[in-house]
Amino acid sequence: MKEILVLGAGRSSTSLIQYLLRHAPAGQWSVTVGDVSEQSAREKIGTSVNGRAIVFDIMNEALSSAAIQGADVVISLMPANLHPLVAKHCLKHSKHLLNASYVSDEMKTFHDEALAKGLLFLNECGLDPGIDHMSAMQVIDNIKARGGKLTSFESFTGGLIAPETDPENPWRYKFTWNPRNVVMAGQGTAKFLQNGQYKYIPYQQLFQRITTVSVPGYGDYEGYANRDSLKYLETYGLQGIQTMLRGTLRNKGYCPAWNVLVQLGCCDDTYALDSVDKMTHRSFINSFLDFHDTQRVEEKLCAVLKLSPEGEEMKRLRWSGLFTSDPVGLATGTPAQILEHILSKRWKLIPGDKDLIVMWHRFRYEADGKKKEIQAHLIATGEDEVHTAMAKTVGLPVGIAAKLLLEGKFKTRGVAIPVKKEFYDPILHELSQTGIHLVEREY
Amino acid sequence: MKEILVLGAGRSSTSLIQYLLRHAPAGQWSVTVGDVSEQSAREKIGTSVNGRAIVFDIMNEALSSAAIQGADVVISLMPANLHPLVAKHCLKHSKHLLNASYVSDEMKTFHDEALAKGLLFLNECGLDPGIDHMSAMQVIDNIKARGGKLTSFESFTGGLIAPETDPENPWRYKFTWNPRNVVMAGQGTAKFLQNGQYKYIPYQQLFQRITTVSVPGYGDYEGYANRDSLKYLETYGLQGIQTMLRGTLRNKGYCPAWNVLVQLGCCDDTYALDSVDKMTHRSFINSFLDFHDTQRVEEKLCAVLKLSPEGEEMKRLRWSGLFTSDPVGLATGTPAQILEHILSKRWKLIPGDKDLIVMWHRFRYEADGKKKEIQAHLIATGEDEVHTAMAKTVGLPVGIAAKLLLEGKFKTRGVAIPVKKEFYDPILHELSQTGIHLVEREY
Repeated sequence: MKEILVLGAGRSSTSLIQYLLRHAPAGQWSVTVGDVSEQSAREKIGTSVNGRAIVFDIMNEALSSAAIQGADVVISLMPANLHPLVAKHCLKHSKHLLNASYVSDEMKTFHDEALAKGLLFLNECGLDPGIDHMSAMQVIDNIKARGGKLTSFESFTGGLIAPETDPENPWRYKFTWNPRNVVMAGQGTAKFLQNGQYKYIPYQQLFQRITTVSVPGYGDYEGYANRDSLKYLETYGLQGIQTMLRGTLRNKGYCPAWNVLVQLGCCDDTYALDSVDKMTHRSFINSFLDFHDTQRVEEKLCAVLKLSPEGEEMKRLRWSGLFTSDPVGLATGTPAQILEHILSKRWKLIPGDKDLIVMWHRFRYEADGKKKEIQAHLIATGEDEVHTAMAKTVGLPVGIAAKLLLEGKFKTRGVAIPVKKEFYDPILHELSQTGIHLVEREY
Repeated sequence: MKEILVLGAGRSSTSLIQYLLRHAPAGQWSVTVGDVSEQSAREKIGTSVNGRAIVFDIMNEALSSAAIQGADVVISLMPANLHPLVAKHCLKHSKHLLNASYVSDEMKTFHDEALAKGLLFLNECGLDPGIDHMSAMQVIDNIKARGGKLTSFESFTGGLIAPETDPENPWRYKFTWNPRNVVMAGQGTAKFLQNGQYKYIPYQQLFQRITTVSVPGYGDYEGYANRDSLKYLETYGLQGIQTMLRGTLRNKGYCPAWNVLVQLGCCDDTYALDSVDKMTHRSFINSFLDFHDTQRVEEKLCAVLKLSPEGEEMKRLRWSGLFTSDPVGLATGTPAQILEHILSKRWKLIPGDKDLIVMWHRFRYEADGKKKEIQAHLIATGEDEVHTAMAKTVGLPVGIAAKLLLEGKFKTRGVAIPVKKEFYDPILHELSQTGIHLVEREY
């Protein structure tokens, strides 16, 4: 009997836990789900006889150590900043660790010890990062195997809502993963390569410098650059490539409207606002606009940011309730915390809502003396507001990886991400059997 | 014989050191000037028999300790982040410390020990912060003494260049103090009170949300808000005031042009650019703009930021050489470091240049049931590129404070700033005898 310990029973863990419970009898596994809320953990287990729920609080050193000591593989879906704490217990007790988050600098420092102990610490094995790496590397390795030379790689992913969901919502967006990450998205400087030139887009320009991404059968999306596209140049083996750009997709109109909030300073998380307890949605916005004797908040906003009062941006802001006199409902907070709180009132998934994952890659390469292009896209639609496409695409790859690891299918050890064939081939294969797969087209 | 130790022989120390040397015989002082460059220290001393130059490197613990042990009063004009290191030596050897920089959080922690040892650690005793505090508090205390109730306080200061200096320079600006601080100016969020409302301006809006400040006899200036106007509410005794705004003055046209650099991301100091060794002024700007097959850098910039190709902003950027193919001349650097390096080529004071300090306050108050207003301004012009108004207004207040301290005129001890009458009255009085004084006008 092997024990898989899943840490974190939040919204992204539903599909992962169901997958593990489904395969538990065949694999002779037991699945333990730990969360600070035992209730949340128990709900994810449901009536399964192969699972059990425990209280898990990483800040409780002794209990965390004991829980991890009893496991064979640990999967962490907790907030990314907590992974290193889990990793230390895994090193101590010689346990494998899987997660769906970006490799942090601290995580990298565990490589040598994990390698020496024969442990796999597999990160970035969710959707983005995760399926994006795997699906891109499959195409890239194929191009290389056929003697092609890659000149350009662009990749965009977005977690959106399905066309039939919330048809009045002009943003075409709701929170399908950590809302805080949505509010903080893009802070810092986006770095990428374009036609052989290093390019940098600061936060204040990010949502204005967007590109259009057309997905066959799904229409046009807005794409904005991710923070650092350059860090995968080496990992992907793309040194010397002319264009390398990774980004995020949103529905049309989202970026110009979000840009208004960026320009106002509503996404700042570095300082606390004053008198939050007396704040309304409207006075929150007003605090970022000069006092005026006669002009209303909407008029001041349109004047400062040169918006049309009846335009698309104002329509979206109004729909989000940003100009109402409803109390914010927090005692204290940074601008980002307050904005998240206000948006959650309209952007929370409700029963019947379905989300939509859209991923798109474009590979340009030279082969046989000719310029060629491949585009590939992946679409996943959620079943409902709990069994979301986000939970499926984040959770299944890491679940499949756990299964393959217990079956002894991976040779790689140390801190890794799934860019090697031994990872992406079997994981993508099993994913495709659940209906999640890329559609490739040669141009 | 009392010894005054001046640390830092940079561009702001000229007037301070000359003042101290001039008063040394009467006060029976010796003046020691310490700098990492003994040569710089010696140049400031000149032929005076009352001064001596030493090598002073705060990173050399033993030598720093010995130098400070021998002094009676220490004046630090070194970079502000080094003051706490000096303060620790001053505490150890029980020496008074004066400087012209903002009180840091670390400096505040020395208050109790300095107080217990009977030491004065007087900060913010230069121009801004310094003369601004003193001149404002003199007016505020007067208004209060006459039974008035302050409703609004606004204060702006700028270090500019004199009208006759560099007439072709469309920015009407050169570096008269630490160039790095000019490039980094305004990063973070400006916080102030306006008509009883807390207001916040993020960096990306700061140079667009400017106010016009009219100084009688000197015309109109652009004012942008300083980072935190609220922190002086208590220090100034202005709790309950409706408007409290401190800011920086620039000549007309500066802010819209500087805003272009802010929007591009040229002032970012948080990451290093790639391939800086091969960079030209032009390719530096181009790295913040998308690749385009046919458009030139200037065209792309105008398109992205909606600028007129022949407009005022482009005129200023062109004049600064930002579109030339001159090599940057650095091996590595952040955007801010590279921008500073490029601007220094045109913004360095040259022989004959004169700088100009402009300070302006507006006080609104109620007295005898009536609404009243006082405006006050201070103008100082430099003699030449070395004896600048900046050096005079930063150095003289701290020099005068040192003299008064040695004469036993100050009772205050601990970490302080010169907002009390015992400081501002005698310091402003002596300053006015050098021609530096506020002109007040009741409205």
